[in-house]
Amino acid sequence: MPVGRLQGPIGLVGLGLIGGSLALDLQRQGHGVRALVHRPATAERARQRGLAQVVDTDASVLAGCRLVVLALPLDRLLQPPAELVAALPPQAVVTDVGSVKVPVLERWRRLHPRFVASHPMAGTADAGVEAGRADLFRGRPWVATPAVDTEPEALAVVRALAESVGACWLTCAAEAHDRAVALISHLPVLVSAGLLLAAERGAAAAAPTCDLPQLVRLLASSGFADTTRVGGGNPELGVLMARCNREAVAEALVAYRASLDDLERRLLASDWDGLQAELERCRRLRPEFL
Amino acid sequence: MPVGRLQGPIGLVGLGLIGGSLALDLQRQGHGVRALVHRPATAERARQRGLAQVVDTDASVLAGCRLVVLALPLDRLLQPPAELVAALPPQAVVTDVGSVKVPVLERWRRLHPRFVASHPMAGTADAGVEAGRADLFRGRPWVATPAVDTEPEALAVVRALAESVGACWLTCAAEAHDRAVALISHLPVLVSAGLLLAAERGAAAAAPTCDLPQLVRLLASSGFADTTRVGGGNPELGVLMARCNREAVAEALVAYRASLDDLERRLLASDWDGLQAELERCRRLRPEFL
Repeated sequence: MPVGRLQGPIGLVGLGLIGGSLALDLQRQGHGVRALVHRPATAERARQRGLAQVVDTDASVLAGCRLVVLALPLDRLLQPPAELVAALPPQAVVTDVGSVKVPVLERWRRLHPRFVASHPMAGTADAGVEAGRADLFRGRPWVATPAVDTEPEALAVVRALAESVGACWLTCAAEAHDRAVALISHLPVLVSAGLLLAAERGAAAAAPTCDLPQLVRLLASSGFADTTRVGGGNPELGVLMARCNREAVAEALVAYRASLDDLERRLLASDWDGLQAELERCRRLRPEFL
Repeated sequence: MPVGRLQGPIGLVGLGLIGGSLALDLQRQGHGVRALVHRPATAERARQRGLAQVVDTDASVLAGCRLVVLALPLDRLLQPPAELVAALPPQAVVTDVGSVKVPVLERWRRLHPRFVASHPMAGTADAGVEAGRADLFRGRPWVATPAVDTEPEALAVVRALAESVGACWLTCAAEAHDRAVALISHLPVLVSAGLLLAAERGAAAAAPTCDLPQLVRLLASSGFADTTRVGGGNPELGVLMARCNREAVAEALVAYRASLDDLERRLLASDWDGLQAELERCRRLRPEFL
């Protein structure tokens, strides 16, 4: 895509992990970056880090931007302050970075004529104004979910943005996106959290005949650590995902239950050949997802 | 523990990840190491790697050993060849490294008077004669599960072995060990395998309205990779664990189901405060297991 599509200053609303990382990449490319943040302390720290040429807590900072990226948490994105909506230049292309797309698209297609729903799928465990880092998006998917009324030229601008930071551009329907992330991103949080809670619950059930609660803590190794990582992560984020993608997550849980039931049935029936076949299928499947 | 407890040559049966790693550590300490392996090609390669002073496929290689470590897979440990049992010096201390302890203890307490059931909890994804590496056990738990008739002096010898390679010694009842590993090691395999199968199953259920099977593969990221790592591992190992620890794994699945049901109930009821509280509990719990 021609870099020319990204002319003029680029506005960023929010300078957390995604906003801050975008800011660093875009400035390195020579773009003017103007940022709107919520708190004065964040603005001060963002200026110290050099995340943008201009950082302000007043939405008027976005005046003159030709592209504005709403790098906000899902809840604030779904209930945007009126002064933010009012300050978005009508001729600017506006996109978001939310990890659920159906409710965002529903809300924002009515709020701005040039809105494009998108989701750069890059993340670390970090958050906040210290989290942004260069090259976060390189090689990662950046999914846009255009609606029938999404303007093709606006979509092309967001694509130019994604490709300028090295992301792999793809588009799909918002419903397909939300189902996919329910299966590969939101379901794992619940599956993993359930494991942590079960280790605690199962150990407590055996006490006081033995000190199982202490023993499970002593013996847990890297396998347990890996399998429980996303379940032991940010609770606010986990709840936001579940809340904003409730139906797709509920559907994903139905699929999960069916798979687990099947494995359990084989265990209880001592169907070791069947269990072996399922685990072999898993070993073949996993590399396709990496 | 006095190193003097480990006098005389030490016998290793099997030179895979555990046996090979022990061999390297023990030789570095100046111990004589004599190893019994199954296949001539393994013996040849073990000699090339310098894993032991003597490597043979004939069980008579164990003659004169004062301590023998059975570093065999669970199935071979539970059905040991008669010539192996016959070749174990009656005055030697014999221990194993199996990851399930009740059936091992039941079998081996009848086979050898100085048997001590133990489980060094160290592992990598590697297996076979190339897998052994120095310092595998440093800082890792080494659990012994003595029975009422386990000889205290034999237990002290195995403790000296564990501590000489830097492992953290602990003892508990075999039943408690098996319940603990069911929760923190065997349950995670099923939970994680279930997630891989569900991503496939859930995506297939939505097709052909959209290409969800392809989309989930494109969008899966590090969270999915971590949560599915143990489920996509060695199928033979997974089946062995399940088979040898069936009842404890079935109990662990009951605890898991209760925990997952609770999370799902909160999702379906839109009980976001409750879900948040559970995920906060998970975030507090996880560091206790690391």
